[in-house]
Amino acid sequence: MKKLKFGLSAIGLAVGMAATGISLPVVAGGPSLSEKDFEEANLMYFQRCAGCHGVLRKGATGKNLEPKNMLKKGQARLEKIISYGTEGGMNNFDDIFTKDQISKIATYIQMDPPVPPEMSLDQMKKLTKQFVPLKDYPTKPLHGRNWENFFVVIERDAGKAAIVDGDTKEVIDHIDTGYAVHVIKGTEHHKKDHAKDVGRFWYTIGRDGKVNKIDLWQKPGKMLVAETQMAYDARDIAVSGDGKYVIAGGYWPAHFVIMDAETLEPLKVVSTRGYNTKGEFINEARVAAIYTAPNESAFIVAVKETGKMLQVDYSDLDNLTITAIESAEFLHDGFFDPSGRYFQIAANASNKMVVVDTKDAKLEQMIDVDKLPHPGPGANWIDEECGPVGGTTHLGVGLVSVWGNDPINHPDQAWKLCYEVETDGAGVFIRTHEKSDYVWADQLKHPEPEVQQSVQVFDKKTREIVKTIRVTEDEGKAALHMEFNQDGTEVWVSVWNRADAKNPTGEIVVYDAKTLKEKTRIKGLTTPTGKFNVFNRANHKT
Amino acid sequence: MKKLKFGLSAIGLAVGMAATGISLPVVAGGPSLSEKDFEEANLMYFQRCAGCHGVLRKGATGKNLEPKNMLKKGQARLEKIISYGTEGGMNNFDDIFTKDQISKIATYIQMDPPVPPEMSLDQMKKLTKQFVPLKDYPTKPLHGRNWENFFVVIERDAGKAAIVDGDTKEVIDHIDTGYAVHVIKGTEHHKKDHAKDVGRFWYTIGRDGKVNKIDLWQKPGKMLVAETQMAYDARDIAVSGDGKYVIAGGYWPAHFVIMDAETLEPLKVVSTRGYNTKGEFINEARVAAIYTAPNESAFIVAVKETGKMLQVDYSDLDNLTITAIESAEFLHDGFFDPSGRYFQIAANASNKMVVVDTKDAKLEQMIDVDKLPHPGPGANWIDEECGPVGGTTHLGVGLVSVWGNDPINHPDQAWKLCYEVETDGAGVFIRTHEKSDYVWADQLKHPEPEVQQSVQVFDKKTREIVKTIRVTEDEGKAALHMEFNQDGTEVWVSVWNRADAKNPTGEIVVYDAKTLKEKTRIKGLTTPTGKFNVFNRANHKT
Ligand code: DHE
Ligand code: DHE
Ligand code: HEC
Ligand code: HEC
Repeated sequence: MKKLKFGLSAIGLAVGMAATGISLPVVAGGPSLSEKDFEEANLMYFQRCAGCHGVLRKGATGKNLEPKNMLKKGQARLEKIISYGTEGGMNNFDDIFTKDQISKIATYIQMDPPVPPEMSLDQMKKLTKQFVPLKDYPTKPLHGRNWENFFVVIERDAGKAAIVDGDTKEVIDHIDTGYAVHVIKGTEHHKKDHAKDVGRFWYTIGRDGKVNKIDLWQKPGKMLVAETQMAYDARDIAVSGDGKYVIAGGYWPAHFVIMDAETLEPLKVVSTRGYNTKGEFINEARVAAIYTAPNESAFIVAVKETGKMLQVDYSDLDNLTITAIESAEFLHDGFFDPSGRYFQIAANASNKMVVVDTKDAKLEQMIDVDKLPHPGPGANWIDEECGPVGGTTHLGVGLVSVWGNDPINHPDQAWKLCYEVETDGAGVFIRTHEKSDYVWADQLKHPEPEVQQSVQVFDKKTREIVKTIRVTEDEGKAALHMEFNQDGTEVWVSVWNRADAKNPTGEIVVYDAKTLKEKTRIKGLTTPTGKFNVFNRANHKT
Repeated sequence: MKKLKFGLSAIGLAVGMAATGISLPVVAGGPSLSEKDFEEANLMYFQRCAGCHGVLRKGATGKNLEPKNMLKKGQARLEKIISYGTEGGMNNFDDIFTKDQISKIATYIQMDPPVPPEMSLDQMKKLTKQFVPLKDYPTKPLHGRNWENFFVVIERDAGKAAIVDGDTKEVIDHIDTGYAVHVIKGTEHHKKDHAKDVGRFWYTIGRDGKVNKIDLWQKPGKMLVAETQMAYDARDIAVSGDGKYVIAGGYWPAHFVIMDAETLEPLKVVSTRGYNTKGEFINEARVAAIYTAPNESAFIVAVKETGKMLQVDYSDLDNLTITAIESAEFLHDGFFDPSGRYFQIAANASNKMVVVDTKDAKLEQMIDVDKLPHPGPGANWIDEECGPVGGTTHLGVGLVSVWGNDPINHPDQAWKLCYEVETDGAGVFIRTHEKSDYVWADQLKHPEPEVQQSVQVFDKKTREIVKTIRVTEDEGKAALHMEFNQDGTEVWVSVWNRADAKNPTGEIVVYDAKTLKEKTRIKGLTTPTGKFNVFNRANHKT
């Protein structure tokens, strides 16, 4: 049988993947590609499609794209779908890919999906590097800045993380990270465990599975202190309450890895492959959200395709205890309630918010919401009628759903829908702050630029939208992801220069949290997406 | 690509396997087989070789048999090895297979191993049958026999379990089970949980993954009350302390399944695929020994290839808590110490006995022993010098190793080798009884008939072999596996009619436990291997 490399080596994306050969998977009677074209299509698929449809193409957010279904559609229909997208949530790609490329991808998905290689702990260890030895770590900040109001900002397509001084609004560093960092998390305050210098160290996870450690006490230019790689494809990361461990989850291979937070040395790898709630075996059981439970010595690991929330006790890695909490598919993104006991996570394909009780390590409740809930960092606030509530945006509909989340003092409202707010367009991120009267929602999923470039703000009291803010009017740019500053007086919104992704033409727009008026624009950023305020994230201001 | 069925359907072995096609896996430049011959070789391999070498041929007890290694050896050398075996533990197969069959298997192992299909919970549910409805279960024994001294006896190649009355020595039933039942377990006394009618219900697990439920209170002919199938290839089973659940482990797929002990309805399936102690991903991570911890509401599941002992809390299946205790490869067979707290299991390829503390769910110790330890049901007794001890036979050497197993009152001797007894040949099973002065060891692994047909008995006081008992002299028969009767006055040894496996020419030889003299022979059994005395197994007399 002819062997073909799983060629992600093309952009040096996947160290080690080139080593293992795979077979050229032509389905009998189906179309085929040359090895070179197959490799190109494979890479494009991995970078642009696999996140929604899966490497093995079994489907998740996107539909199943196995040959048995694709052959029925045929080349022409597939090219059309990929070029122009569909009503049901499939993006258009005619702005990113050439006609020729789209034709290759359309052929590629009519062939059997190649299975990418595994990654062993040894491989990860070989990819671990120290840029600054532990003994040279400073004992106090080497700059005079208020680092607790720093924002760590993803510059997606530049493969960088920018550090922005929240007081002065200066971009003080652009740190080289892996390809398309997806999430960045730092050490946080914890009820039982105590990390040193909370908020000082930040850890990035890239789509390529690279993990970078950032030390905010270092001088700009020196902040990148260590690196490793724990998968070929990954999305989320977290730091243990004691600051000793970092955990990151793989989309491929389907596993999570616990690393030494000092050196990033990988210590433990645990497979998440297993059975879904229907009892079917899932090889591509990807790790979506990962958090540290604020009150327990445990990580919370959401396994997307199996609908299982894993509560992983990190107090003894050699005798690792995991509770697998059955919920619903496909688990994606979540956030804790204000007490830190309950984790609220979207099971998007089930149109549910799943609530896990981390005190008893069990399912607390499942709340029916609208199409494809997606809270991003999430939002908790107090509603006059329902008491403490949580809220989410939806990928599938312009709507914010709000539910009670205080079972102790408001048992009648707890885990029930309190109210809904209609927005102009489907969104990805919701955000608020305890000092703010407002809740902010973006509309990233809406196809029309006017809506996609606007965020909407509603009043916690009246539950009415009070302002629609057009964040940018530039073609090819989108508005997304809100983050408050340290004292809750400002809201920062990203302008993602999607079309001009190679240049620093993205920006962050800063709004006054009270007047909702624009204060300033921070320029010189390349494709800024997520951003993380040190103080708010370390103190669970969600 | 041509599709070929994973054809275990030939003997109806694997219901459901025929449904999924696999590709005919010819290695470039390597030899190949017709589809028909491939299917035949595949079946022979699955039945006779996979247990030691693995379905995916990565190696375990036997070596790696992947094409990259096999192609180097070539057809002629491979045929020789398969025909005549090797010194290092590879059996000869010239007595079981024809020259032509051996040639096909030799070619087969030079081709890529086909991956058998998965099995979903739904498939298992469809294979679940009630022969006697729950409402018709008797409320007391329907026969006047002393059922607590029954022996449940495996008739391996007949696909039956015989029920032998230990008082009268009558074979009162031959129950139809799956193909080659491997282990049978019943409800047991438990420190925390309490099952009804302890010792009444017995559960068989076959090599084909079939599970049968036997009710010893029924009249002969009516004892088989339910059936299911939980894998295509399996070895061990256990019943929860409260008698509510049955758990069985798969060799393929690599998972364990928890069933309702009343109906055998499969409730939960958990994959055991994961990383070994070196951090390499193992797809074929087979479940070997499964037990219920006598003092905890937990199952103990040994995952052979990953070297992980899983302690599975069965008190909440929806929020299933598992502690994965890292130990050594390849975990195989084990037994509890007399306190019921410590599980002692062979990690055979590491030449270690692994000890797990089920109270704290952690690794207690690893004891270095000789080549390939294999205790079977195991043996615990009191040594004058070392205090409470455990012992094991070895597959790789004629030796019984004995270690201290009482860390509370004999901490200096605990988990250290106390002494060794040389036997004439490598064996598989060791056994004793608290009322007996002797320890019995078989020598099943020795190639010479005189030794293989003899068991050896040593004195607990003198530590010396006091008797070598030739159990049979018939050609083609082997002696194996000892079991005491209810009051400890008799020892039963199986005579396995290997060569004449289709006929009831096997027997059980009963010895006086004190005088070591033969008392009687129970005839009319087809290939008896393991046997399980109701009282001793229910009361942890190991
Ligand atoms: C698992 C996961 C998390 C962690 C959730 C949590 O911590 O609760 C997450 C969080 C995030 C966060 C962190 C939010 C926060 O404030 O904590 C951001 C900024 C983000 C920006 C994007 N995400 Fe994300 N994201 C995925 C996965 C995830 N994203 C996908 O699988 C998906 C749908 C498709 C893909 O191929 O990646 C996807 C698309 C996107 C985007 O298109 C965004 C907008 C830009 C990008 O980087 O591609 N995701
Ligand atoms: C996992 C496992 C157990 C459970 C151990 C425990 O409970 O602690 C077990 C127990 C057993 C027990 C239960 C012992 C007891 O008293 O509890 C018996 C009788 C037994 C007869 C055999 N076993 Fe067994 N056995 C395997 C697996 C296992 N056997 C194999 O993988 C192997 C090596 C090769 C194979 O392909 O099956 C194998 C060969 C054999 C035999 O050749 C024996 C002698 C006859 C047969 O059935 O094939 N095994
Ligand atoms: C943001 C998520 C997302 C991404 C990224 C994505 N898709 Fe989709 N895709 C979807 C969704 C959701 C659907 C279902 C749309 C519908 O039902 O209208 C879909 C549908 C499809 C379909 C039609 C399937 C059918 O049976 O109707 C094809 C083909 C397809 N996608 C191919 C691709 C390819 C190729 C890529 C990458 C170049 C890609 N998709 C990227 C979400 C995505
Ligand atoms: C009881 C366990 C067991 C069974 C069953 C078994 N083998 Fe083996 N096999 C071994 C062991 C152990 C070795 C290593 C022997 C040695 O090193 O001398 C081995 C070695 C081999 C080798 C030589 C590998 C090498 O690289 O040297 C081949 C080929 C082989 N086995 C094929 C088979 C086939 C085919 C079957 C079934 C028809 C089979 N085995 C059944 C245990 C087993």
